[in-house]
Parts: sequence; structure tokens; C-alpha cells
Amino acid sequence: MAEGKKHRLGFDLGATKMLCAVMDKNYQISVRNKENSSKGDDEETAYKNIVGCITKTMDKAEKKPGDFAGIGIAVPGPIKREEGIISETPNLGFKNFPLKKKLEKEFNLRVCLENDVNAGIYGEFKKGAARSFKHVVGIFPGTGVGGGLILNGRLYRGADGGAGEIGHMIIQVDGRLCGCGQYGCLEAMASKTALAKDAVFLAAKGASPYIFEKGGTDFNKIKSGMLYKAVKAGEKEVKRIIDRSAYYLGIGMANCVNLFNPEIIVLGGGLVEKFGSPYVNKAEKSMKEHAMPYLVKKVVVHEAELGDDAVIIGAAALLDDSADE
Amino acid sequence: MAEGKKHRLGFDLGATKMLCAVMDKNYQISVRNKENSSKGDDEETAYKNIVGCITKTMDKAEKKPGDFAGIGIAVPGPIKREEGIISETPNLGFKNFPLKKKLEKEFNLRVCLENDVNAGIYGEFKKGAARSFKHVVGIFPGTGVGGGLILNGRLYRGADGGAGEIGHMIIQVDGRLCGCGQYGCLEAMASKTALAKDAVFLAAKGASPYIFEKGGTDFNKIKSGMLYKAVKAGEKEVKRIIDRSAYYLGIGMANCVNLFNPEIIVLGGGLVEKFGSPYVNKAEKSMKEHAMPYLVKKVVVHEAELGDDAVIIGAAALLDDSADE
Repeated sequence: MAEGKKHRLGFDLGATKMLCAVMDKNYQISVRNKENSSKGDDEETAYKNIVGCITKTMDKAEKKPGDFAGIGIAVPGPIKREEGIISETPNLGFKNFPLKKKLEKEFNLRVCLENDVNAGIYGEFKKGAARSFKHVVGIFPGTGVGGGLILNGRLYRGADGGAGEIGHMIIQVDGRLCGCGQYGCLEAMASKTALAKDAVFLAAKGASPYIFEKGGTDFNKIKSGMLYKAVKAGEKEVKRIIDRSAYYLGIGMANCVNLFNPEIIVLGGGLVEKFGSPYVNKAEKSMKEHAMPYLVKKVVVHEAELGDDAVIIGAAALLDDSADE
Repeated sequence: MAEGKKHRLGFDLGATKMLCAVMDKNYQISVRNKENSSKGDDEETAYKNIVGCITKTMDKAEKKPGDFAGIGIAVPGPIKREEGIISETPNLGFKNFPLKKKLEKEFNLRVCLENDVNAGIYGEFKKGAARSFKHVVGIFPGTGVGGGLILNGRLYRGADGGAGEIGHMIIQVDGRLCGCGQYGCLEAMASKTALAKDAVFLAAKGASPYIFEKGGTDFNKIKSGMLYKAVKAGEKEVKRIIDRSAYYLGIGMANCVNLFNPEIIVLGGGLVEKFGSPYVNKAEKSMKEHAMPYLVKKVVVHEAELGDDAVIIGAAALLDDSADE
């Protein structure tokens, strides 16, 4: 099914930005186009913006639809992959929207929908940090904690496309409250959101003058960058909560080692991007302390390499590879 | 590779018993033979006992080695599957023992080695509780908590054959001490061993006269049957710890739902056999409380159906199916 000579279009429909790119059959990107996502618009307007972004990308690359093998689209939130329907998007207003069918008709091209976290880990598997591995766990701590799985060299989606909810693995019975309503999920223990809870507390009790100055005690104002700068400013209590997040992340990684016996764990997401290798090293140390020794000894931990490109590359690659399934 | 018309031999090398059976190409068992395992013997004696058990089973079935497509063997503890080496067995004295090669030479038959938990879930997948499903999680709480995974219709082993250590998923950071040395593993929270810790405590403080009478306060004397009878005798504190075990098991199940998005979870093992559907129902209730609603709503929970036969059937079936890999 690899229509060898043609180009591919990868599209990342984010909550705030749309990223569209033209790439060759080896997923080398030649042209990128980034635009703001619709917000608060109706479905039809949001859809037209997607079409506009794709058309502009093709124009920028001086290509016509006929030059492409298809379009791989990554979307946030749940999808019905085979039907190509966006079930729901948190911020974009889509609800049971048949994006695949509409775009196929619009451009007369094959269109493939995928969840953005799955596309991201698939991109890292094809061209990034995990490119020489067959068994890959991707964990992306940011506002939430996303997860994606490559098992036996294929994206693992489970029975209904929902596998890999690593962030909602409970690591602490009756632990901290999670956005999903449970207590003690990895996300509730290690995400930026979890840190924000502690950060406003530290600000309120006078343990983080930096955060208090920049964000006050308003939970909504806490950003990863603010936490990073507080640590840089020498605030030890803030450093402690970051270290604790890495420690919990390592326990989640250890559980994944024991369950999936992977060769590599790829870490990405906002916290990893902001806090870099010291954070990753702490998480890896905790992973080694908590996993079964014979399973963890060969596991490699790598930061994601492709940044924003991971999702568009993965979406485009899945356009080719999902045909095998 | 399915040598269609021949018989298969399935062999379960247990810590206390060896079970060997003759089955047809549909894994219908015609003859069974059960013998005591060697204990404290040297490797060669233990090996001769295995050969003797297989030979006796063939004799009992009035078959010769040439009537068989091969022998599927399930062993406890870690193996090197491709080389067919038993790395180590807790009670049987084998250490880096090339069982596959020796048996192949002995009987001039193809021999396939598998971990016993993997063989068990594979048996349930081929002929038992999970036979019409493609995505299956098996959890077996007994002395430990074993786990096995069928993903996309195939046994999932991971990079080094060690995947599926569901019992060593940490569900409670700094929780109860586990046999593996960690704290808060599912096994440490839900297994018979976890219950035994609480049972001796209840016996010591006078909250379980039944256990005190039958086993005193000796941890080593606590059996599942004793716990069962204490509950039957109306001991509420013992019932509470059993219910708590099911609750924790349900959290482990919920984590598996979120990670693997399975269609079915098969529960087996000593605790499930002893406490039956009330225990399974409590675990299922807890699973539903703790998993993501959209992932758990279609998940079926079933007790294992095949009992001791699961392992021998799975071992024999993997003899055929592992040829595809």
C-alpha cells in the first residue's frame, strides 16, 4: 500500500495550534505550516479552517492533491478510527464529526485518523528516539500524562482504540485527586497539574516567593516555565516537588517495565521539555529502584527527539502502515 | 506447521506435581497422567523423572513418540524460550538446564518451552473462558499474583519474554512489603500471602478464633482453605480482609483495563478457586469503580474454566502457534 513515490501530508489538530507538513515517503519534512486552531467556532467553521490550513500547506509546497498518497491526521481526544470520526474534542467543538469522509471527498485522497498521543509515539518509533526498537512505551507528562505503546513493532490500540492510558494507572490507592475523578492515578501524582496544586500551596505558605510574585496563589496561573524559574532561583521546596514528580513518574515507568517488558521508554511532554535530563535521570533512577531487576536491566530511557514533528510524522506514517492491519 | 493428524503432548512441570496429557489436534485430552515432582533431587534425577512421566503417559495412551507432533512444556520460573533453557526453578533444582534440547533428542520430537502462567492464559484463550476474544488479560491471585496477556490474538511476551508481571505493578507507593522486595505491589496487597500476614495478626489479637485454633499464629500454616472456613464460620474480620483483597485486585484490574483496553479479564488462581464468584464479583465492582468508564463498560470478567488443564492445553497449543512467530 506504500504508494512509493508520492508525498504525504501530516496534520496535527491541536487544541490551540494546527500543524500541517508535507513530507516524502521517508517522512522527511519539506514544508511546514502552523496556524491557530478554531476556538469556540461551530463544527463547520472549524472544519473549513482545517481545509484551509491543508490547502495553504499544499500551495506553499507547490503541490496538488494528486501529488500525495494521503493525509494522516492526529486529533486530541477520542476517535472512532475505522470510521474516521472525531468522537469529541475538549476545546475544538467537534462531536461525532466524520472528518475522514469529509476530507476524503474534499481532496480525493485517502485520509487516516489517529489519536495524537498514539501518533506522537509512532513518530518517535519511525524516525525519532525509538527508531531501532520493537517494544516501546511512550510517556508524556505535561498538563496530563499521555501514554502510547508500540508492541512487537506495531502501534498497540487495544480492543476499542483506547489502550495506553498510562496516566490513569493508579499507583497510590486513595492518593491525590485526578482530573478523571479517581484518586492516585500517575497523572494525579506526577503531572504539571499535580505540581500546580503543590505550587499554589507553597506560594500561599511563603515557601516560594518566586511563584507568589509571578502567579500569586492562583492555580490557573501556574505554568511549567514558572516552576522551572523558581527552581533556577534556588527555591528548594519547589525543587522538592519537581523531584517528587520524577520519582512518581519512575514508579509508573517501573510498572510499565513489569507489564510490557519494553526495550525503551521514551519520555516527552511539557515537564520533560522544560526540566530536561536532570528530571529524566531522576525518573530513570526511580524506575530502576521499583522495577523487577531482570526486566529493567536492559531498558533504555530516552527523551523524545522530534518535538512537535513527532505527531505529524507519526500521523503520516500510520497512513502507510495502518494499511497492513 | 500444524502437523494436522498427529497428537500433542502437554506437560506442566509444577513445583509439587507434574501433569502430562495426550490430546488431539483440537486439544481434546484423551489421557492424563499426574505424578509427584522431584524435590531436592539433582538436575539429572529431576530430568529422568520428567522423561519417565512422559513415557508413562504415552504408554497409558498406547502411543509411540512418532504419533505426536511434539511436546509443549510449561515450567515455573524464568526460561530462555528460544533456546529452550530453564533458567531457574524455585523448588525443582534446575539451573540453566537445556530441557528442550535434551527432550528433543530423547524422543525425537519437537519440544516447546513456555512459562506456566503464559501457558495457562493461552489455554483459556484457545479452549476456555477467553476463547472468543482477541484481547485478554489473565490475573491469577494465589500465593503470588500471576499475570498473562493475549494482545491482538497472540500471546504477548515482550522483549525478553518477561511481560505480564501484573502482580508486581505497584498500586500503593510505599504500601505493603512484597516478596520481590518492593512495597505496594498488587501481589503484596491482594495475594494469599498478603492475607496470611493479616490472618496471623487477627489470630494473635483474638479476632479469629478459627484461625487461631487451626493454625495458631504461624504465618507458614495459613492456607486459603483455612481462610475460607473462617469466613464460613462467620468471622467478620476475616471476611473483611478477603473483601479488601478483592478490592485491591479490582484496582489492578482497572489499571489493566486502562493500559491494555482488553475485551475480557480472566481470573483464576487459588483465591478465585476457593472464594469463587462472590470474590470475583467484588473484584469486578472495584474494577468498575476505578477504571476509565469508556474503557471498562464493555469489559467482561470471567473465572478461568479449565482448571489444571489450562496449562497443558496452552503448552500444547503454543507448540503449534509459536511456529507462526
